[in-house]
Order: sequence, then C-alpha cells, then structure tokens
Amino acid sequence: QDHAFAGATTPAQQHPLENLSPDELEAVRDVMLRNASLALTPFGTAGVRDSFIYAMELLPPTKAAMLDFLDHSGPRPKRYARVIVYHGAWDSPVVNEYQVGPLPIKESDDPYDEDGCRVVLWRGPIPWVMRPVAANEYVAWDPIIRGAMRSLTTLLQESYGTTYDDGGIFFTDNAPRGYTRLTRHSWIWMMYAVEGEYINCLGLEMQINHLDLNPANWFITNFVYNNQGPFASAAELMWQYNNNATFQKIKMTFPGTEAQHLAREEALKNGNRAAAAASSSKPLQQPDNSVPVWSSIRTRENAERRAFATLQAPRTYYPDGARFRVDGSTISYLGWEFLLTSSIRSGLNLRDIRFKGERIIYELAIQDAYAGYAGRQPSQATSNYFDSGWGMGWSSYELIRGVDCPETATFLDAHALANAGNVMTQHNAICLFEVDASGPMFRHYSKPKLSMTYSSAGGVRSSHMILRTAVTVYNYDYVYDYIFHLDGTIEVRMSATGYLQGGFYADNSDNMYGQHVHSDTMGNLHDHIIGYKIDFDIGGLQNSYQKMMFRTGVFPKNPYLPPSKTMKYVDRVTVPSEKNSISILNTTSPSYWNIVNLDQTNTWGVTKGYRIQPMATIVNIMPPETEFMKAASWSKYNLAVTVRHESEERSTESLYDMQAPDDPIVSFDDFLANDENIVQQDIVAWVAVGMMHQPHAEDVPITLTVGSMTGFVLKPFNFFDTNPAMDLAQGRFVQANGEPAGNVRPMVPLKEQLASPPERKPGNVLEDT
Amino acid sequence: QDHAFAGATTPAQQHPLENLSPDELEAVRDVMLRNASLALTPFGTAGVRDSFIYAMELLPPTKAAMLDFLDHSGPRPKRYARVIVYHGAWDSPVVNEYQVGPLPIKESDDPYDEDGCRVVLWRGPIPWVMRPVAANEYVAWDPIIRGAMRSLTTLLQESYGTTYDDGGIFFTDNAPRGYTRLTRHSWIWMMYAVEGEYINCLGLEMQINHLDLNPANWFITNFVYNNQGPFASAAELMWQYNNNATFQKIKMTFPGTEAQHLAREEALKNGNRAAAAASSSKPLQQPDNSVPVWSSIRTRENAERRAFATLQAPRTYYPDGARFRVDGSTISYLGWEFLLTSSIRSGLNLRDIRFKGERIIYELAIQDAYAGYAGRQPSQATSNYFDSGWGMGWSSYELIRGVDCPETATFLDAHALANAGNVMTQHNAICLFEVDASGPMFRHYSKPKLSMTYSSAGGVRSSHMILRTAVTVYNYDYVYDYIFHLDGTIEVRMSATGYLQGGFYADNSDNMYGQHVHSDTMGNLHDHIIGYKIDFDIGGLQNSYQKMMFRTGVFPKNPYLPPSKTMKYVDRVTVPSEKNSISILNTTSPSYWNIVNLDQTNTWGVTKGYRIQPMATIVNIMPPETEFMKAASWSKYNLAVTVRHESEERSTESLYDMQAPDDPIVSFDDFLANDENIVQQDIVAWVAVGMMHQPHAEDVPITLTVGSMTGFVLKPFNFFDTNPAMDLAQGRFVQANGEPAGNVRPMVPLKEQLASPPERKPGNVLEDT
Ligand SMILES: [Ca+2]
Ligand SMILES: [Ca+2]
Ligand SMILES: [Ca+2]
Ligand SMILES: [Ca+2]
Ligand SMILES: [Cu+2]
Ligand SMILES: [Cu+2]
Repeated sequence: QDHAFAGATTPAQQHPLENLSPDELEAVRDVMLRNASLALTPFGTAGVRDSFIYAMELLPPTKAAMLDFLDHSGPRPKRYARVIVYHGAWDSPVVNEYQVGPLPIKESDDPYDEDGCRVVLWRGPIPWVMRPVAANEYVAWDPIIRGAMRSLTTLLQESYGTTYDDGGIFFTDNAPRGYTRLTRHSWIWMMYAVEGEYINCLGLEMQINHLDLNPANWFITNFVYNNQGPFASAAELMWQYNNNATFQKIKMTFPGTEAQHLAREEALKNGNRAAAAASSSKPLQQPDNSVPVWSSIRTRENAERRAFATLQAPRTYYPDGARFRVDGSTISYLGWEFLLTSSIRSGLNLRDIRFKGERIIYELAIQDAYAGYAGRQPSQATSNYFDSGWGMGWSSYELIRGVDCPETATFLDAHALANAGNVMTQHNAICLFEVDASGPMFRHYSKPKLSMTYSSAGGVRSSHMILRTAVTVYNYDYVYDYIFHLDGTIEVRMSATGYLQGGFYADNSDNMYGQHVHSDTMGNLHDHIIGYKIDFDIGGLQNSYQKMMFRTGVFPKNPYLPPSKTMKYVDRVTVPSEKNSISILNTTSPSYWNIVNLDQTNTWGVTKGYRIQPMATIVNIMPPETEFMKAASWSKYNLAVTVRHESEERSTESLYDMQAPDDPIVSFDDFLANDENIVQQDIVAWVAVGMMHQPHAEDVPITLTVGSMTGFVLKPFNFFDTNPAMDLAQGRFVQANGEPAGNVRPMVPLKEQLASPPERKPGNVLEDT
Repeated sequence: QDHAFAGATTPAQQHPLENLSPDELEAVRDVMLRNASLALTPFGTAGVRDSFIYAMELLPPTKAAMLDFLDHSGPRPKRYARVIVYHGAWDSPVVNEYQVGPLPIKESDDPYDEDGCRVVLWRGPIPWVMRPVAANEYVAWDPIIRGAMRSLTTLLQESYGTTYDDGGIFFTDNAPRGYTRLTRHSWIWMMYAVEGEYINCLGLEMQINHLDLNPANWFITNFVYNNQGPFASAAELMWQYNNNATFQKIKMTFPGTEAQHLAREEALKNGNRAAAAASSSKPLQQPDNSVPVWSSIRTRENAERRAFATLQAPRTYYPDGARFRVDGSTISYLGWEFLLTSSIRSGLNLRDIRFKGERIIYELAIQDAYAGYAGRQPSQATSNYFDSGWGMGWSSYELIRGVDCPETATFLDAHALANAGNVMTQHNAICLFEVDASGPMFRHYSKPKLSMTYSSAGGVRSSHMILRTAVTVYNYDYVYDYIFHLDGTIEVRMSATGYLQGGFYADNSDNMYGQHVHSDTMGNLHDHIIGYKIDFDIGGLQNSYQKMMFRTGVFPKNPYLPPSKTMKYVDRVTVPSEKNSISILNTTSPSYWNIVNLDQTNTWGVTKGYRIQPMATIVNIMPPETEFMKAASWSKYNLAVTVRHESEERSTESLYDMQAPDDPIVSFDDFLANDENIVQQDIVAWVAVGMMHQPHAEDVPITLTVGSMTGFVLKPFNFFDTNPAMDLAQGRFVQANGEPAGNVRPMVPLKEQLASPPERKPGNVLEDT
C-alpha cells in the first residue's frame, strides 16, 4: 500500500521533472565532494568557515524543453541538480548555486567526458550575509548563549526556579536577521523546556549578533527582561537586577498542570502577575505522563468524559479498494493525472495536471507562507516569517496515521538532502486518500409547479481525493491540501494548527498586540498568508486573464423593469497588462477571476477557462513601504497575473531574502514592473490567500483547524460544453411511484390533486425497498 | 433508526418550542373549520373567493416565558398555533393571522371554557394583494393561460413543434408580483415539458394580471416572443406573427439528447440560432430512458467511463454505532444539545443550543434566501426572489438516501399544514449524521530547534455532526447544513445545486446578463444571499458586540522595531448602537466580529465570547433605493446587531412582502432605525452571506455544490479557559523511540547529531507496529 515518492522508477521511466531520488541526491553530493576545486567539507564536520553543501534539489528543465518532450516527441530533457554551496572557507565567503549534471552520474565520473557530469555556476555569488542559518551556525551559537545564560544564573534561579545548564530552560530564535544586507543579528528568547515550550516564554530575550566573518567575534547584546531594557550585556542586566531598587523582578515557577494553573489564577490579585506567581503556585516539579503539563497536547485523561465519547468516531472505507493509482511520482484518479514533485523550500509542486486527458495546469506550487507578528517584546515585534526561508519543503515530516490522514490513506515518503550531510527520508510525509463527501455533488427534487407530488428526484454523491502534507515550522503546523473533485475542480487549502508562537504576558498593555491566553502567556496577533503559483495552460500556452465584474446599471429601454430601471449586469474585461491584473477580493464589488483562452471556445462559442475562486481571505495590511514588504510584495494581492519567464520561477527567494527582506534578491513587484501585455500569452496566476490570527484562549495549548483555513478553488468555467460529471454512475435517480419513467414530465392537473389531497402517511418513494 | 421529527413525545414531555405535531396541526385545522363565525371552506374545495386556512405553525412562547420555564422552574408555557387565514369570502377580502389555543385542544372543545381553545386575531388585516399565491389561485390561472395558449396554437406548432394542449409545453411564473401594494401581476413563461424543463425556455413570455377581486376579470397581457413586444394580447402577437414581414420567428424543435444538440451546434452558423435550429436538428421525439434528454440529470450511461469509475466510492461507517441521540425533537451529540424546530417559511430553526451544559444560543434560524436576476426578458429582469415567500420551510422534501446523506444517517420526518388541506408529511426531510473529517482537529510534530529528530508527535482526528435539509424552490435546491464541531464551533453552510432558472438565448447581447450555456439556453446572472438570525446568549442575556479591528500603527517608542516603527495591532471596539453594528467583510481591512458578555470573563480575565466568521461572501449590490431593497434590506450587511424584541421575530416577512417588496410589512432597516444601545443588552446577530452566480456551461444540466457554497462559522472566543477539545480521547500521541516519555523535552546536542547523522532508512516511529 505504501509507495516511494521518488526513486521507484528506473531512469528510463523517470519523469524529467520528478524529484531527485535518494540515489541521485547522494551521487550529486559525492561528485561535489570529490571535486577538488570546490574543496568542500562534509556537512557533518563542517564549521561555519568551512565550505560545504547546504542543500540541493532538481533544477527543472525549461518549460519549452518539457513541452517539446511531452507534446511533440522531442528529446527527453536531461536532469540536473541545483546545489547550494556555502563557500565559508573563502576569504570573502559567498553562497553559490551550481548546476550539476547531467544525471545519472556514472560510477567513475570524468568531467571531461562529453556526457560527463559538470559542475557549473548557476547563480551567484549570493551575499554571505543572506545565507540561511545552517545547523552548524546554531552549533556555533551554543557556547555563546550558554555563556550568557551562565552569567545570569542567579537571575534565572530566582526568577524561574531553574537554569539553562540544568536543562530547564532553552531558547528559540526568530527571523528576519535584520532587514537589510548590512545586518545579521537574531532575537532569541528563553522558555521552559517542557512539552509545549513554545507557549512557556520567560520574558527574557536577547539579540545575538552573528554578522562577523569570524564566529569568535559573535556576541549577545540587547538583553530584555520583564520588558525592561534593552541592556547591552548580561553584566549590565545583572547589575540592574541586583542594584536597581525599582527593577521589576519576575517570579515564575516551573510549569504545572492545567488544574494548578487555574487554581493559581484564582488566587492571584490584579497587579504584577509574574511576581505574585510563586506564592500561590505549586509547580509540578516531577511531571508524569498521567497528568500532562498544561501546555502538552496530550489527552486530559482526568477530564470529564462526554456522553458517547468512549465510542469510536466514524471511519471511512473503500468498498472496492482505492480508486486512485500511484506510479512512481505520477498520480491518477478518476480522470485526473499529474506528477507529484516538491521543492525543498516551499513544498508540494504539482506538474502537468490533466483532467480527462487535457492539460489544465503546467505547475501548481506553494511559493511561501508569510506570518508577521505584533508585540511589545522584540521576539514578537520583529517576527516576520517567510517560511520557505526555513525550508518549509524539507519540513514536511512524518504524518500521523489515523490523525493526519485516515487509515485508508496511501502514504508516500519524501527525501531531501538539505541542511544535513545525508539524505533525510521523511517516512510517510505525504498522504493520498479519497473521501466520502457525505453529500450531493448535485441533486434535484423535481416537483412541477402545478403538482403537489414530485415527479422525479436524483443526484450524485460527492467524493474527492485529497493529497496532503503537514509542514511543521517549529511551533506551527500547516496542513496543505490539494483536493481533486470529480468535475475537474481543484481545491487548494491550508489549515493551520500546532502551537502559537507564544509571548510573555506581563500586563494588560500587552493585549494591544494580541491576547492574554494563559497564566504568563500571550498569544500575539499575527497573520498567515500563503502564496501559490498557478501556471494554467488552458488549451495551450496562449491564455488571458478575463475579469468579470458584476455591476448594477440603469437600463431605461428595458420595458419590464420597474421605475428605477436598475439591474445587475456582467462586465467582462480582458485585463491588458500585468499591473492591471492586481485583484483583491471585494465583498461589495464582486468579481470572477478567470484564466481563459480567447482563441478557444466551447461548443456554445464561449471562451474556455477556469475560475480562480478564493475562500475568505485577507491581504497583507502592512504599509507597502515598510521594511518587510519588498520581499513580501506578493502578499499584497490575492491575485496577480504575469507573463511566464524561466527567470521568474518563484515569487520569493526567502532562503536568502528572509535575511534581508528590505533588499531582497526576488521581489514579486519586479515581475509586474515592466507591465507586460498578458493577452494571449503564456501567463502565470500568482494567488495569495490568508487570514488574520488574533489568538484566544481556545488556541491553548494548540490551535484548531476548525475555522482556521484559507485557500481557493479552481473551477472549470466554460471549459467544457456541459457539466463534466454526468458520466459518473455513483448516483441515484428515482421516478415517482406509479408514474411513467422517461423524459416527459407526468402532470396530474392541480385541481384534481386539490380535490383529493394526498393522504398523510410516511412516504417511501425515495427509500431503498 | 428513523425518528419522527415532531409528535413522538407525549404532551407532558413536549418541549414548549417543539413544532406542532401532526395531531396538533389537524386539531387546530378542525377547530377552525368548526368555528362558524370564521365560515371557512376546506382547502381542497375552496376557491379564491372562499375563506380558507392557508398555513399554520407554532406561535412560540415569549423568550421571557421560556427562560422562566427553562432556567427558573417557572410554569410550562402554553402552546398556541398561528394560523394564516385567507378571508376570500369577505366583500373586502383580507388575510388574518389567528392565535389558536392553548393546545392540546380537547375532543369536544368549548371556546367558552376557561381553558378552552380560543381563536384570537393575532395579526391583521394584511392587505389581500399581499397574499401568497395559493394552489387554488394557480388553478384559477389555468383556464386563462390555456385559453391564451390556444390562441397561439399556430405559433406554438410552427415555432416549437408542439403545443400547450398537447402537453409538450408548460409554464412557470416568477415573483415579485409587482413591487408595491397596488399591483398583482406575474410574469409567466413557457418551456418544453421535459426533464429539466427549467432550462428549456421557449422565448415566449407574458404577464398575468390577477389583481382584480373577481378572478373572472383576470387577464393576460404583455406578450413577449423572441424579444419582440410587449404585445397587449395574444391576438396582437398573432397578428404580428402572421402579417409583419420583419417579425423574427423562432424555429425550435423538441429537445433531444446532448449528442444531438452538440451535433446541431456544429452545423449552425452564426446568426439567428433559433431560426436555424430546425433545419439541422433531429429532435428526440420519442425519448427513452437509455439516452436521456440533454437537460436530464440522469447518468449518461453511454458516456466513456473513467478508469476506476466502476468501483464504488468511499463510504463512512460508525465502528461503535451513532454517537448522537434523538429524543423527540431534542438532539444531543458529544457535549452538544439543542432543540430542532422549523418555520414553514424559512426552514430549520435550532433552539437553546448548549455545549457542555452551557447555553450559547437561544435561537439559530434561517430567515430568508434572496436571489435577484438580470436579463433582457421580463422573466429574468423582474425575478427578485425572497424564497421564504415561496414557503422554503415546507419545501424541504424527502432526502435521497445515499446521495443527500450517507447511508449511516438518521432521518427525521417533517410535517406541515401549509397550502394544503391535510398535513403533508415529508418523509426523511431532515438527516443527521457524523462525519469522519479525515484530518486533524489539531496536531503537532515536535522537533526541537537544536535537534534533527522529533521528540514527540500527536493530535486528534476531527469528526463532526451534520444536520441537513435540502430545500427545493422549484428549479433550485439549497442544501442547508448545520455542523457541530467537537470544540464548541458551529458551522452554518448553504450549498447550492439544482437547475438554473434558465433563460431564452437569442443572441450575443444576452451575454451582458449572464452566459449562453446551451443551444437555446441562457444562464442568467443572479446572486444568492442567505439571511440568518443568531440570538446568542453568552453567559446570560446581557451581551455586546465587540468588533476587533486589525490595523497598523507607528510605535516610535518601541526600540526593537526597524526605522518605520510600524506594526500591526488590534483595536477592540465595543459597538455602541445598532446603526454602528453594520459590518461587511473587508479583505484589506480585516476584523473579527465577536458577541461577548462584558460582565463575564474567563480565568485569564478576558471577556467571554463567540466569534462570527463569515466564509467568502458578498452583500446585495443593488442600489439601496431600488424597488426590491426595502424588503431585502437585511441583505445589505454581512452582520448587523439589534436589541431583541418579540415584535422583531424575523428579518423578513416574505410570504407577504414578496408581493410588495417596495412597501413591505417588515423591513430590517426599521430594526436599526431607532439605533438602540446594544451594550450589554439581549441582542440578536443578523448574518447575511452569499455569492454571485454567473452561470457557465458546467451549470448545465445542473449546478454543482463544489465551490457553490457560502456560510459562516461560530467559534468560541475566550469563552473557555483553554481549548475545550483536550478531553477527547480520539487522538494519538507518540514519543520518539528510545527516549524518555514525559513532560520534559529530551535534547541531544546538535553537535553530536551532526557528527553522526541519522542513517537514511524508512523510519517507522509513527507507524502502527
Ligand atoms: Ca513582467
Ligand atoms: Ca501558462
Ligand atoms: Ca432597534
Ligand atoms: Ca441574545
Ligand atoms: Cu496563527
Ligand atoms: Cu444560482
């Protein structure tokens, strides 16, 4: 039942766009390590000032080459890897990206052979300051942080009842590391080392400056404690702590059970909550498994059970087995077919999506996930995440069978060689299953107007296939779904769960930036905006953006309208150019956003297209001129349409740009800047959807997916001549009892019906008999 | 497994708000018919100028009386019926509504007994012109329409190949019947009498004037044929048809199969489509069941089958049986409890909704469904439906088991005595089932920052209970869902399916008002807006509307922000009064809409509340001063909040007002007009959500629910101290292999992990073993 996601096919069968297989990843790594001129150190032993491979993935063939191969029997495009190398060993270190290939690499590879593997600079140099923080950089931080925390031992012990060295406290960091290419400093903050550490913040924060080329010169500054500071050094913080009479000290105790926290809260008066805490709290110093710490997500076994809660929840089954197939990385399901690939940066990327044999989309891919926070403390005030910069694509970890996906699901593994020396296989990282939608895809109960009984009724039950990954970016878990409906509709959704990025709650003034959600814990206001790339190819490459705007107008010549002569109408606009394509959902001025092929019509002469229909959404509300919006310019629009260029592969390059969002390598607005003509061009639709997340008590310990969802629907829109689901035999159609079946409506005159009205009895006309 | 919706309890157990049972309905009817002063004629034999009972339903006890009974051991409120009587026999006919009761009515009821049943005028007189068109009014239309159609026999035979008398053609009508209280005329239009008649319009329309008190004086005028007219009479139309050389004749043939229509279209040139039709079409004069007419929703058995399509779709089962209970009209499910009632006008109405024992909502009820159309022809140009005016509540017909609801569902019957002489029992009109959501309610994969492996992972699978009705208003089917989640969230959805209200397509100029979707068929632009009443009672009656607005501001004193000093924040506004409560979803300026109790806080001192979270929606875009917007004023706002008054029970009274929308009995704006203080009052939230429906070819023959959905989510918002779903044991939690379980995070130093990186192997840590 389980399948390997990549690498299950022989090279000859391999799709040119398929992910690099584990063997390919390792072969590329090895050929790079053997390359003397690169002088690379294996990842596991490389320090910051060594040169090493940070990450690699497929460098996809150009679309032109792919279409030549797929549609015109052209040559099979060769596969290459794109390898990110940190040249830390150089005097002026840089990051370079190399094109390595073609693949497969031969056993004894000679780069001077005609077909030999070559390592060619593909992009670079990328400024050293923009490199993602690799594992070995965190290793280099460790003694620096440990040293600072040792200087604070008295404060830690008195304020928190434990220390860093004791293992009761640890840290996390945020991003960006500044906002220009001139800085590289990260805010780090301390939390209790318990389950749900994310929401056990201590109110102790500091900034590590890791700009210098020599890690020995890195240092920690800007200590903030209980909203006091910033203090330049640990020593200054300790001096204030020991000598300043007005200094506000924190008194927290190790996290306890929820019951203990609720009891403590009852005992608390208004005032300095943290200082009052110790007196009334009995910390759970020896936590056990039967009563989890309040921030654990484990079941509260001692909670009162609801009626019926001991019964198992409903389950889905396949009466005849799965109705989809996985062949290597190709997935097919009841008329659908596509290639499943992924990017190490942003995650799933579906290629060459076809329905009933016809290509609809060349590429449908997550681009990035933005989350911008608010708060008094630096940890929150500066958090502006571009999660592909954390490697969202290699953070789709193992799915929990029976929780994340039903028991019936087919699971696929994912492989990456990123921020590690070996291929990391994420077992069961992707799942695939068909769902009983438990309701009608369509239905009608036909009751002719002059009739008191029905003449026929019927419909088709809906089911759909879900392709799912769950991406964990430290505290948060994004559940990414691609849903394939039987009528040619694709639904794309992101559901948010996981932990809040908790903050330290000191007093009511924190609530301007979020909400006090537990004893000492803030839930800080933030948003989630997800960017997607949709390279529609409707009936070929030449597509247009047709915007339908629904307006009201005055039609004085229409004799049937009442005196205002006012009526709705549809205004179809072929959007001429990129800058005009910017679209934001508007409740008072609705519109439909259709990607169409103006040169192709269905049988009724209507241009063929697909509609992009966002769910409830927001756009980024930060003013466009602020520091994080150049890199996040894609998040300002629910939709923008550009001419496709190979050089504009992605709307963000956050691996680098999260280190310098005000001076990024890729700013989506640059795609629009030349305002190209988008009428009957190979265009790409860039969609951003999101939600504001104002935390509330029910987000603790963990955010629920219910109502925490955004996404969009891609729906055939005059793409077909009629409803393409009429071929499905999973329906049920009933004619009224005793009346002739067939196409002509049986009609009993209403007058006769009224004179002898139907008896009151439980009807059974639609029942199984 | 099946349950009677009402009437299954004895009077002593009966909830005072429960629907009238069949026995109660009949007893009320009978006591009215025995009442000599009313002089009523039984419905089955009553003509338009007789007096008769049109409809009846429960007249609910006041909220004060109910709360006294429910919460303070007060007396059980007595039950009364509210009966709508057409006093057609009076010289100046009116409609009156009577209060009849108390119930039960004794066998030999003496109205002069102290406890005897009394018939008291409850509301009236209602202008005769505003009465809904009852079945007998349609009966009275029949000979008038038949006569007109006979005058057109030549035209019908030549244009359409069949006639009205032959049964090949019939009509439907629209509403409103004008827009003031001075008119009562309805547009009617002709369609082929086949399956899917709705989308087989003939381009022949006319207006029936049924204003006069004497039905003998009713007449048909304003004939429109092929967009020519209006002609005052059938004779004038026939004169034009026979004598006007420039008159454009229609040539249609009886509808055929889809293949025939597609073939015909191929053969057609541009130009007069209808005229060209006959030459190239082979009509299916003898339709059979194996090849349905194009407009049928039956499976196209001759269509090419998709791979796997012969396998059965997934199904849901209950491993341990249903986890909900139905006791009479009371439904309980895993902490939820509520009373299920309905209104004959608008449908389901849930009362006294409690979660974990605490009342959240006193009343959650559909109010109305608006749909306003556009089009050249009068049928479309004048269609402005207020579907509760058609009796949406008694139009929830039998559900199709296995299509509308899964096999596991529990079905409930619904009873109504409305527009009929007897109780009409709609068998299986309501269904109730629990669904496997096939994904996490919450989950987290815990991977500490300085770790390359996970420490723990877990979550809880989501399931929820769906309560469903499907309401058929002639061509359209609304699927109304109330979804109960295990965290205290209620999701309210409407999915649209059924047939379009088709129009007649003549030429491209029709596309300004919709889309040409089949041979001679238009899909006309329209909207769907659904109104709901939510009487939240959060911790008691005194509630407020707290609007959270998310803004950006400049915070120059925050030392951690970059130079723009710009950050998001939340602005909490306690909305002072009704007029200020108007809220419309705004993508660029997001807000949360919370109903809170300012006098009650959770443990963290935060006001308890629920959030109203709309899905993607629109508001009514028609200018507010136009003729249909007084009755539809509720549809201008996604949310408005008013002080609850018994006299403001419903936001519409469309049974009457659809006959005079510009001069309605109830205009929701009047609720707001006195701009009452809504701070800590017994308030009601009125929600309207909707969507624009620009038809497309895939709506033919039938609209799909996929992506045709609107609704909202009601979500606990600091109502609880923490996530209320942590008691559920339907989860799964795993600790990393070989590491200690418990509350303290295991940490292997990253440096050690890097030096000996994990092997590449399929992990099995989250697998069942
Ligand atoms: Ca461009
Ligand atoms: Ca394209
Ligand atoms: Ca008022
Ligand atoms: Ca209330
Ligand atoms: Cu969030
Ligand atoms: Cu519609």
